[in-house]
Amino acid sequence: MHTNGFESQIADINLHEWGRKEIKLAETEMPGNISMQFQQKLGLMALRTMFGPQKVLKGAKISGCLSVTLQTAVLIETLKELGAEIRWASCNNFSTHDHAAAALVHSKSANIFAWNGETTEEYWNCNQKIFEWPDCDGPDLLIDDGSDCTILIHNGIKYEQEFAKTGAFTNPDEFENREFEVMTKMIIKGLRECGDKWTKIGNRLIGIAEETTCGIHRLQKMSKRGELLVRAINVNDSVTKTKFDNMYGCRQSLIDGIMRATGIMISGKKVVICGYGDVGKGCAQIMRAFGARVVVTECDPICALQACLEGHEVKRLETVVREADIFITASGNRKVITTHHMEQMKNNVILGNIGSFDDEIDVDGIKKYPGIFKENIKPLVDRYKFPQGHSVIVLAEGTCFNMACANGNPSFVMSNSFANQVLAMIELWTSRNETKYEKGKIYVLPKKLDEMVARLHLHALDAELTELTQEQADYINCQVNGPYKSLSYRY
Amino acid sequence: MHTNGFESQIADINLHEWGRKEIKLAETEMPGNISMQFQQKLGLMALRTMFGPQKVLKGAKISGCLSVTLQTAVLIETLKELGAEIRWASCNNFSTHDHAAAALVHSKSANIFAWNGETTEEYWNCNQKIFEWPDCDGPDLLIDDGSDCTILIHNGIKYEQEFAKTGAFTNPDEFENREFEVMTKMIIKGLRECGDKWTKIGNRLIGIAEETTCGIHRLQKMSKRGELLVRAINVNDSVTKTKFDNMYGCRQSLIDGIMRATGIMISGKKVVICGYGDVGKGCAQIMRAFGARVVVTECDPICALQACLEGHEVKRLETVVREADIFITASGNRKVITTHHMEQMKNNVILGNIGSFDDEIDVDGIKKYPGIFKENIKPLVDRYKFPQGHSVIVLAEGTCFNMACANGNPSFVMSNSFANQVLAMIELWTSRNETKYEKGKIYVLPKKLDEMVARLHLHALDAELTELTQEQADYINCQVNGPYKSLSYRY
Amino acid sequence: MHTNGFESQIADINLHEWGRKEIKLAETEMPGNISMQFQQKLGLMALRTMFGPQKVLKGAKISGCLSVTLQTAVLIETLKELGAEIRWASCNNFSTHDHAAAALVHSKSANIFAWNGETTEEYWNCNQKIFEWPDCDGPDLLIDDGSDCTILIHNGIKYEQEFAKTGAFTNPDEFENREFEVMTKMIIKGLRECGDKWTKIGNRLIGIAEETTCGIHRLQKMSKRGELLVRAINVNDSVTKTKFDNMYGCRQSLIDGIMRATGIMISGKKVVICGYGDVGKGCAQIMRAFGARVVVTECDPICALQACLEGHEVKRLETVVREADIFITASGNRKVITTHHMEQMKNNVILGNIGSFDDEIDVDGIKKYPGIFKENIKPLVDRYKFPQGHSVIVLAEGTCFNMACANGNPSFVMSNSFANQVLAMIELWTSRNETKYEKGKIYVLPKKLDEMVARLHLHALDAELTELTQEQADYINCQVNGPYKSLSYRY
Amino acid sequence: MHTNGFESQIADINLHEWGRKEIKLAETEMPGNISMQFQQKLGLMALRTMFGPQKVLKGAKISGCLSVTLQTAVLIETLKELGAEIRWASCNNFSTHDHAAAALVHSKSANIFAWNGETTEEYWNCNQKIFEWPDCDGPDLLIDDGSDCTILIHNGIKYEQEFAKTGAFTNPDEFENREFEVMTKMIIKGLRECGDKWTKIGNRLIGIAEETTCGIHRLQKMSKRGELLVRAINVNDSVTKTKFDNMYGCRQSLIDGIMRATGIMISGKKVVICGYGDVGKGCAQIMRAFGARVVVTECDPICALQACLEGHEVKRLETVVREADIFITASGNRKVITTHHMEQMKNNVILGNIGSFDDEIDVDGIKKYPGIFKENIKPLVDRYKFPQGHSVIVLAEGTCFNMACANGNPSFVMSNSFANQVLAMIELWTSRNETKYEKGKIYVLPKKLDEMVARLHLHALDAELTELTQEQADYINCQVNGPYKSLSYRY
Repeated sequence: MHTNGFESQIADINLHEWGRKEIKLAETEMPGNISMQFQQKLGLMALRTMFGPQKVLKGAKISGCLSVTLQTAVLIETLKELGAEIRWASCNNFSTHDHAAAALVHSKSANIFAWNGETTEEYWNCNQKIFEWPDCDGPDLLIDDGSDCTILIHNGIKYEQEFAKTGAFTNPDEFENREFEVMTKMIIKGLRECGDKWTKIGNRLIGIAEETTCGIHRLQKMSKRGELLVRAINVNDSVTKTKFDNMYGCRQSLIDGIMRATGIMISGKKVVICGYGDVGKGCAQIMRAFGARVVVTECDPICALQACLEGHEVKRLETVVREADIFITASGNRKVITTHHMEQMKNNVILGNIGSFDDEIDVDGIKKYPGIFKENIKPLVDRYKFPQGHSVIVLAEGTCFNMACANGNPSFVMSNSFANQVLAMIELWTSRNETKYEKGKIYVLPKKLDEMVARLHLHALDAELTELTQEQADYINCQVNGPYKSLSYRY
Repeated sequence: MHTNGFESQIADINLHEWGRKEIKLAETEMPGNISMQFQQKLGLMALRTMFGPQKVLKGAKISGCLSVTLQTAVLIETLKELGAEIRWASCNNFSTHDHAAAALVHSKSANIFAWNGETTEEYWNCNQKIFEWPDCDGPDLLIDDGSDCTILIHNGIKYEQEFAKTGAFTNPDEFENREFEVMTKMIIKGLRECGDKWTKIGNRLIGIAEETTCGIHRLQKMSKRGELLVRAINVNDSVTKTKFDNMYGCRQSLIDGIMRATGIMISGKKVVICGYGDVGKGCAQIMRAFGARVVVTECDPICALQACLEGHEVKRLETVVREADIFITASGNRKVITTHHMEQMKNNVILGNIGSFDDEIDVDGIKKYPGIFKENIKPLVDRYKFPQGHSVIVLAEGTCFNMACANGNPSFVMSNSFANQVLAMIELWTSRNETKYEKGKIYVLPKKLDEMVARLHLHALDAELTELTQEQADYINCQVNGPYKSLSYRY
Repeated sequence: MHTNGFESQIADINLHEWGRKEIKLAETEMPGNISMQFQQKLGLMALRTMFGPQKVLKGAKISGCLSVTLQTAVLIETLKELGAEIRWASCNNFSTHDHAAAALVHSKSANIFAWNGETTEEYWNCNQKIFEWPDCDGPDLLIDDGSDCTILIHNGIKYEQEFAKTGAFTNPDEFENREFEVMTKMIIKGLRECGDKWTKIGNRLIGIAEETTCGIHRLQKMSKRGELLVRAINVNDSVTKTKFDNMYGCRQSLIDGIMRATGIMISGKKVVICGYGDVGKGCAQIMRAFGARVVVTECDPICALQACLEGHEVKRLETVVREADIFITASGNRKVITTHHMEQMKNNVILGNIGSFDDEIDVDGIKKYPGIFKENIKPLVDRYKFPQGHSVIVLAEGTCFNMACANGNPSFVMSNSFANQVLAMIELWTSRNETKYEKGKIYVLPKKLDEMVARLHLHALDAELTELTQEQADYINCQVNGPYKSLSYRY
Repeated sequence: MHTNGFESQIADINLHEWGRKEIKLAETEMPGNISMQFQQKLGLMALRTMFGPQKVLKGAKISGCLSVTLQTAVLIETLKELGAEIRWASCNNFSTHDHAAAALVHSKSANIFAWNGETTEEYWNCNQKIFEWPDCDGPDLLIDDGSDCTILIHNGIKYEQEFAKTGAFTNPDEFENREFEVMTKMIIKGLRECGDKWTKIGNRLIGIAEETTCGIHRLQKMSKRGELLVRAINVNDSVTKTKFDNMYGCRQSLIDGIMRATGIMISGKKVVICGYGDVGKGCAQIMRAFGARVVVTECDPICALQACLEGHEVKRLETVVREADIFITASGNRKVITTHHMEQMKNNVILGNIGSFDDEIDVDGIKKYPGIFKENIKPLVDRYKFPQGHSVIVLAEGTCFNMACANGNPSFVMSNSFANQVLAMIELWTSRNETKYEKGKIYVLPKKLDEMVARLHLHALDAELTELTQEQADYINCQVNGPYKSLSYRY
């Protein structure tokens, strides 16, 4: 589809004015309020001031696969301001803000291939689109979320090599996961048209930056096996991302999602949080603040002990499955809530995933459950009635309901995460001719940059930083201006 | 307007299926989950079981003026189930759930005169409609919120008497408040058609039940001056209403409203809560739980000391007006935030009212401010740009944004409030020929009923009540089955 | 005993210097810090400034029975400063601060009859001492805690009348409660010496002020039966007492007591709080803040629903007795934890009472339990080993361990309570020749005074009160300077 | 001093019975309660069961310098049970529990050189004593806290080498810090008697285990400069130490210390926490839970942003120094609160250090302040009156008041820390002939052991661990039994 001669696929270009108004509001949050006194810029917007004039990303083609939200719009336009050209898709079928997409396309900030409510086929087609740069072999840089596009490229190359060697296609019927099945079919279909498309893309690609914990898990597996073909920057593990977005972002979007989808009173309810990582910690904390009775499930004894000492019950899901009213998965694992669990639940319990993929709750399993009856209450809220008589209410078909049923994490915290993304792009691009980062390896950003991101957000919250004297800095063995902590410091 | 021969004025009858699905969900919350083991019914729904068979309200015509929400729909259908006939309007221009209204009309549960987005004229017309029973002089009972309809009747009577005496109309131009101006004009217009309509309505009316703190304030003034013409039950001051709905209900709908309207990150923000009554207490508590820095304004030294000992800053608005990011009024008073305050605020601050009427924030004042520029961001979210250069964002035009921008208080807590409304209706109706309640006086429900309402909601939260031994009951001077506390006990 | 010709019975006069230093520290808390700028005095100390010069209590003989602590010392010396003469005993065998007592006696502020570790006999003798004013028939006013001394007077009179009528004594063997047995024996012994001592005391006594919830329960029973012979002011139900001392005072002294007595880690423990009144609310809140898993037991459905909506489990004691680590009674009732419960507890659980009397936990029952073995760990911490093999650790022999094992509620909050006591004394004394207060009836202080007490404590916490405009005051139907709320307002 | 022929220097051997009773209580907390059903041992005590029979530490001579508390007594007797011989001193002049010391000596568990209230000279003499093993050149292993003894050895060696080379002594007058001056004088005095004592000790010593953040800072400096002569295990950075002891331990002992030392009401006070590391996080959280208004000072922007998003004010000390009531240092740095700050404080503010050494608050500076007047309120609580007229109250002379004024961190959390210490001792001892750990380097314990420590403490809190399926473990790339997280995971 083309809009005013600008390639894109979005829901409705007419939403662009509304989108622009809300992007402007998001901008105020993402730099925080601009200090009236000092005209000092803050946060993500500050990076435009710092790096915009010299156009540090000039010449860089960036593909992005990360929910097209109001917040992401500010990220995209920041990259644009720094000189990059951009193609973008969403990493989640239901997370696109259509008015944000419209505004981006209308102002020709980026070619967008995303709309709310994509089918799985459409989802992978959009992902493919962001690699199809006119007159070139692909992007220089990739921003990924959950490593979907990284896997797409790597699988593409694998099939191309296999086909070049054997002249045959692997049978996609053997994939149990529907996501992979659809992706593979798309790759194979493409293979018939062009035999080295993904190989060329892989060759050109300098590096990627990954946003999430589960994406990092996938990258680490690939790196360990020697299969990772590019440089990778682990944005997720910047402290200013993982300890902020995951914890403070999710605790707000969790509540937002629950309330918009169900309107249920949280006070007094028994809520099970599966997983007590940063996301789970935020969820448990805020659920309790609302007066829920929280139960945590965990496999890691250290995280479990943290949950205990914060006062949460730590139980196996089996122990509490009959008592709880709300179940939230935040485990980063799969099949954490099975249909066997659901068989034992109370009537009208609510199941929502805020973790990684849509298989934390076995939604596929529900759909195939013999005798199940599905009733759609409203968009993204389904009630499944079991033949035993009770029902469970599933949010957003098991995808992250904080994105799908609400607006995802709020702008201010995303400004932290996305400032790291911008810095990662700058690092990869400016060092492209150096040996600083090696192919096949995964890096975190230097602590100095991590601290810079934090620093850019403090003024908006009226915070004043204490300055160390030289004597004090010497005493704790750091520079007066940081970095202040060792790499192993846990915050 | 008639729908299938059923008188009503609503937005769209076609929303009825969606409304019915969500009402059914609300019902699960309002009785809580039905105990699978004991088939015991709970909450508001339990009252249908307890009082439905004997139709205790048979013959009663009830007019209601209280937001037509999913929750109110359950209240209305409970009253219907108990035998009453019902006409209903909303107490707030923006709070009607149109699909709930549609479902009620479709199933002919009540004649509804309410839609989301009424003008002030439409609002008062709807209020008038609920008194216009076919073939009769008005309702037997009135459920009111904010005393709007009570004042309508009393003013109607006053004008009728005045006109009968003097043959002239008071000039409505002298009303500074637009609400009263519109109401008065409507009354006067009606006077020309029928000179004793409101007098007849007042004569028939047995009693009213009032839902809110500010409604009670108005009633008390009328009662003190000897102007109150009917019996009144103060539902607001049932413990199971005021200490639950106001505190636990509002703390959830506050967050819901803020997030839907603005999506702002609450963590780290400085938030001013004007008023530290039950509503303010809930707001301050949850804002802090989300990591806001809370400042409370209060005139009452006892409430102020409570705020202090909970760890909130207590300051005059003048002291913090330049620093805060979000201002919430919960004072039950008027002109708490003036344009003079707004002149000094930071750019893009958010102003929202969760208290009583739309004059807690002086929205009228903003509109008249010389050189002000209004931009509508999205429905019910307006940015007013001051000529000085900064803007303020006003939610829901100063009406309760937790109702207007979100869905109001959640079902479970409304079940407590509305169970009290049902009991008030039963009390007034069944004692109509007795001297139990006197005209012109205001009563709270007996503590025994208050405790019953609480009892009906406990099982849904897995709570077990301790039973006193006779010896223990004697020792603390109560009955084994309650009531347990003196009337002055503060909970 | 006489110290420098000053009648008293205390532990050790030599502690007076230490006591004086700590009283001075308490004074800084009780007015809060004196504002350096305005030299404005606050809190209890402010009453000295307000009422000291005119000596409003000149001529009043006041007997007091309320723990002789550092805080009470400030109360006593405030009464002294206002012109009163004072005799004082403690209301708890283990709560006297011996150094505070020493300082009071050394400076001849009051005749003190109290030391830490009184036997039951000594306790009642001390109580009797405060009524034995030289050359007179007793006090004019009484400050009481738990109504012990009020009951002493009334029982004294009853026995005197009975003896005058019948010439015989009731047999004290029939009293099941040891407290009453010892008191009765003491009265009867006194009867043999003087037949109308208590009658004379009763005749002279103008009125009493009672400090606690359970004392009020006793007074109400007496008043209801027409047995109460004097005017009573219910200080407990001043908002600035019951909503502050009970809630904020106890939540701090609870933790203080637990930590000093046991040093146990609270995080992660399962803690049962028996009773969810103001004291229980404070206990549950702070236990959870420390990371305990809180379970509440309650008989009142309204309080139980409050506990639920705050997120606490509400269960019968039977349900959780096997799982909990710490049990705190705050019920105001008796035999809440029985030996039957203890038989089922885990090993080394901790039992402490912060409620009313020492029979909330059935300590008498433990002592008589067949085969029990008692080991004293340290003063006021006993381990009782059951023949079944497990042990329970009982704090302070079942008396209020927050008083006995720690220092009771902190000065600042006691300043609120005691300011009410001072105002009660002034009310009773200055109206002694009027009909304002009737014999046999119980009064709370006017709301205006309640608000004044709060006002006196705000400046110390940097709080600023908002001032109403006349328009606002009219609107909510109050005076600009208060009182702001109706009598039924619950705060 | 010898007690029954057992070398030691302690306060009073007669306290041993009381000490033993309390050690037994601590033991119940340190394994948690023993599961009645499974007779499973937990925590520190479990290590006795696991490693006691084979006496894994047989032959090891261990010197320890870590507060001799009830908790440390359980550590010492665990090491003893595993076969070690032990000499021990306290790492803090005021932190010894004399009854714990007495019990240890009485049962000949270890040679103890520690009492509460040591002078600086006595402190260093005790530290020296633990290296003077009869008939041998020193210990095999050292447990250190703050690296005091590690520095003692290294300085001893330095002076010996210097003296051997030059025949002269460095002039100790040039040391500004009194601690180092006294230590150096002691070393030099010893040099005159024996010229290679510390060299021999250094040669024999296999390794050390360090307990604290600030000790690790010192070790890292030494290691970086190539000056560290032994293997070091960084126990502090085991997750089960630093994220538990520092956070959950300190939040409890902070409150305990404040309440015992001052009895001040925390609610409503303005409290400054200097430093927002793990200790500061715990302090800020619990202070707020008690209703304090918390202000954080921080130099690290990431920690500062965490404080902001938790809702704390983040300010420079200069900004709030005039307003706050309580100041707590938890920075791990020095001269954080200077006399210049104190000059501006309100009257009777409280200053306490819970961080590292006694120079976080410049107590030396106060003492030398011209015209200062010191008044001792009670042991370890001093009021310094400035000539300007106001006073500051300093706790524990600037040493960790949570140790000195109260009992330090509670047993349960210390069981985590000390289990790591025991495992460190086992690692160092059993690998003494291997190359696993290199001299001059610092190691953390393997994550597997860290998780084991957590696992040993879960059952006591009724926690149930979720077990991963093999599929799930594969998916997140770990073993079913852990370790579950990468080394960089921050918890």
